[in-house]
Amino acid sequence: MPNNALLTDLYQLTMLQGYYQQNMEELAVFEFFIRKLPKNRGYLVAAGLAQVLTYLEHLQFSSDEIEWLASTGRFKPAMLERLATLKFTGDVHAMPEGTVFFQNEPLLRITAPLPEAQLIESRIINLLHFQTLIASKAARSVLIAPDKLLVDFGMRRAHGSEAALLAARASYLAGFAGSATVAAGLHFGIPIFGTMAHSFIQTHRSESQAFIHFAEANPDNVVFLIDTYDTEAAAQKVVDLAAALHAQGIKIKGVRLDSGDLADHARKVRIILDRGGLNDATLFASGNIDEYKLAELMAGQAPIDGFGVGTQLDTSADAPYLDCAYKLQEYAGIARRKRSEGKATWPGRKQVYRNYDNNGVMSGDTVTVDNAPCAGQPLLHLVMQGGKTVAGQPTLIEAREYARCQLNGLSLPLRQLSNTPEYPVIISAELQALAKIVDERNTG
Amino acid sequence: MPNNALLTDLYQLTMLQGYYQQNMEELAVFEFFIRKLPKNRGYLVAAGLAQVLTYLEHLQFSSDEIEWLASTGRFKPAMLERLATLKFTGDVHAMPEGTVFFQNEPLLRITAPLPEAQLIESRIINLLHFQTLIASKAARSVLIAPDKLLVDFGMRRAHGSEAALLAARASYLAGFAGSATVAAGLHFGIPIFGTMAHSFIQTHRSESQAFIHFAEANPDNVVFLIDTYDTEAAAQKVVDLAAALHAQGIKIKGVRLDSGDLADHARKVRIILDRGGLNDATLFASGNIDEYKLAELMAGQAPIDGFGVGTQLDTSADAPYLDCAYKLQEYAGIARRKRSEGKATWPGRKQVYRNYDNNGVMSGDTVTVDNAPCAGQPLLHLVMQGGKTVAGQPTLIEAREYARCQLNGLSLPLRQLSNTPEYPVIISAELQALAKIVDERNTG
Repeated sequence: MPNNALLTDLYQLTMLQGYYQQNMEELAVFEFFIRKLPKNRGYLVAAGLAQVLTYLEHLQFSSDEIEWLASTGRFKPAMLERLATLKFTGDVHAMPEGTVFFQNEPLLRITAPLPEAQLIESRIINLLHFQTLIASKAARSVLIAPDKLLVDFGMRRAHGSEAALLAARASYLAGFAGSATVAAGLHFGIPIFGTMAHSFIQTHRSESQAFIHFAEANPDNVVFLIDTYDTEAAAQKVVDLAAALHAQGIKIKGVRLDSGDLADHARKVRIILDRGGLNDATLFASGNIDEYKLAELMAGQAPIDGFGVGTQLDTSADAPYLDCAYKLQEYAGIARRKRSEGKATWPGRKQVYRNYDNNGVMSGDTVTVDNAPCAGQPLLHLVMQGGKTVAGQPTLIEAREYARCQLNGLSLPLRQLSNTPEYPVIISAELQALAKIVDERNTG
Repeated sequence: MPNNALLTDLYQLTMLQGYYQQNMEELAVFEFFIRKLPKNRGYLVAAGLAQVLTYLEHLQFSSDEIEWLASTGRFKPAMLERLATLKFTGDVHAMPEGTVFFQNEPLLRITAPLPEAQLIESRIINLLHFQTLIASKAARSVLIAPDKLLVDFGMRRAHGSEAALLAARASYLAGFAGSATVAAGLHFGIPIFGTMAHSFIQTHRSESQAFIHFAEANPDNVVFLIDTYDTEAAAQKVVDLAAALHAQGIKIKGVRLDSGDLADHARKVRIILDRGGLNDATLFASGNIDEYKLAELMAGQAPIDGFGVGTQLDTSADAPYLDCAYKLQEYAGIARRKRSEGKATWPGRKQVYRNYDNNGVMSGDTVTVDNAPCAGQPLLHLVMQGGKTVAGQPTLIEAREYARCQLNGLSLPLRQLSNTPEYPVIISAELQALAKIVDERNTG
């Protein structure tokens, strides 16, 4: 994963040139938040913090990069000298990965000398936005089909290699069982899944021969793809092969459907397998699956045990981006905000407090000035201090378990796939008062 | 950019285990095509071939990767030995980057020993899909606003780092002027653009002071962001500063608007700048821009000279994926196809021929069996032979010029942003006859 300092917008560097020239290096506070949840999202799931921390710990311009920057003619020697030794030395407060959150709630706060805090904006958004987008999308499938095996199948249509890897991670974090993407197994220790494509069937003279060859080569991982020519006919071939494979010590684990009316095929195939004594063989389905399709299949009680969820998940197709921002909240000890039309932000360092009802269901959050008294659980914690990650950050497995608990705290209306109510996020009186002070200063 | 062989779906590896065990290593032919254009797309623009060729030339498992694969317990020693020495040795035929194409037309054909051709499926789709998606989206803005400066602003909400880099490349290929993403300048030589964000204004005591500091630090790149507090008031401040900056030899190049009613602000700001003698200063606009918004602004003759196009472009938000496939067309000299419901493909090695009317407008394509006689210009060319890229591949600049010519050949109805007609793509009698033969073989 490229982790370099040039993964930024040019305006960060032209601004740094201004900051350095004016010696504007006092502490700045920036926060990352989502302005408004997309249509059909009742909640979001924070993800991507681990990659942000790695990025910040390794932030550095190589000498080749400095040389290239010099060659553009845009930067003065004094600026390039500063960049050559730049490190991230600041603090990071953040919601742990897997935290459920809502509109206007900062999930990350950066406190660092202004040039450092500015430079990192583009990549921090890039990392937090994407994994949060995908974890939030994946959680919807997890909550709709809690007892099904859900596997990320989206690598091919993910937007590039990093998207494929991070989508595997984010969906696993949200409760998926694993991914088909092999590199995600190596990089993140995520369980990987996969058996055969149609091409394997097509390269053989017959479907049955393809099944036998696959089983002999992968005796512990026998799931046959049965829709290449005729789904039910192929299910019967699977039944007919079972005894011979059994004699070789090979067990048929299941079959996969990938086209047509999945519920209808699943019912017919289930009957064929059961009649043939393959009651233990599972049915796995793929092909244009998303949470809406899952809801339909669950409502119809389609006898399907697991699903490959691909394109719709990895591109978050029904909401391919979040309206997020990383905004200056304070500089040199003074709270700030912009008032651009439709884009005004709440100023100052903030904290989010969460309250629950007696059943452990989330009942409302308050966004307030950091350190102001407030009821509820604070959601932002110190995760990096002076450029070093605080010890004891959760593993991916721990974050996954935390996400599971968080999702359990969602009310049923918020879990709906559409027409979700807006969760109450209160802006505290202290924060509103601070905004007023900031505005009066700027207009004065 | 990670370029490793594990960037693949697990089923490719389990299939390879079957192929190797059965010595199924004869030549396979796979083709990549788009089944159906998304809603509101009258055409697509091929992109990503350069990255595919680099990937294939460098395809290799490292010893660490082989060790990790061994540790999963899924693979036999014989299989791992084969992977350890695997290289791509095949041929590639492809449409040059920048080619306009349509449904059912292969834009890439791989001819290689079956295991090689199979393994590369996931990454080839991942690379071609994304850049084609973005180049096709970008071309719509280019055709709507041919005389405007269009700049990719999408890095922050692109899906990961590779998406950001490749979106910069694909949009430049389609005719954008450049990108804000600095790393795209380094990696692809794309012109980069950028000046200041709101935080630069907010960290200063006043907007005017921020403008002065920026101009002094970046005297050759003076574009002021004027919507932080009050757009028209800021425009007047710019006018008021002009003389003092001019005395320092600094020319104000322009201003940027980023919120509110862009057309309305632009008209008012244009008047303020012109009255103040800044007739040469340009207006640049950003904020939720896409081709639909551009069409509206162009129709209203908003006096805006350039646009930053961000999130909507880099996520292709109105069509975040293409219905594409990489399918086996032939193995061991015999044409193949799958007949899965709704997903049947045309078999065999194919070529696409294009015809033009007397005005140089594309009038219809024919997809036929490779080497069958056919009228028109063939679109697929040999670009890699025996694993080596054929000399003389176009540079990015050349591909960009080719894309420009291709887009000029589109009829006006196909350029529409919505309700586009379907371009005629004829499946030749030879190809239909071949499909019939293949089906009779499979059912026989």
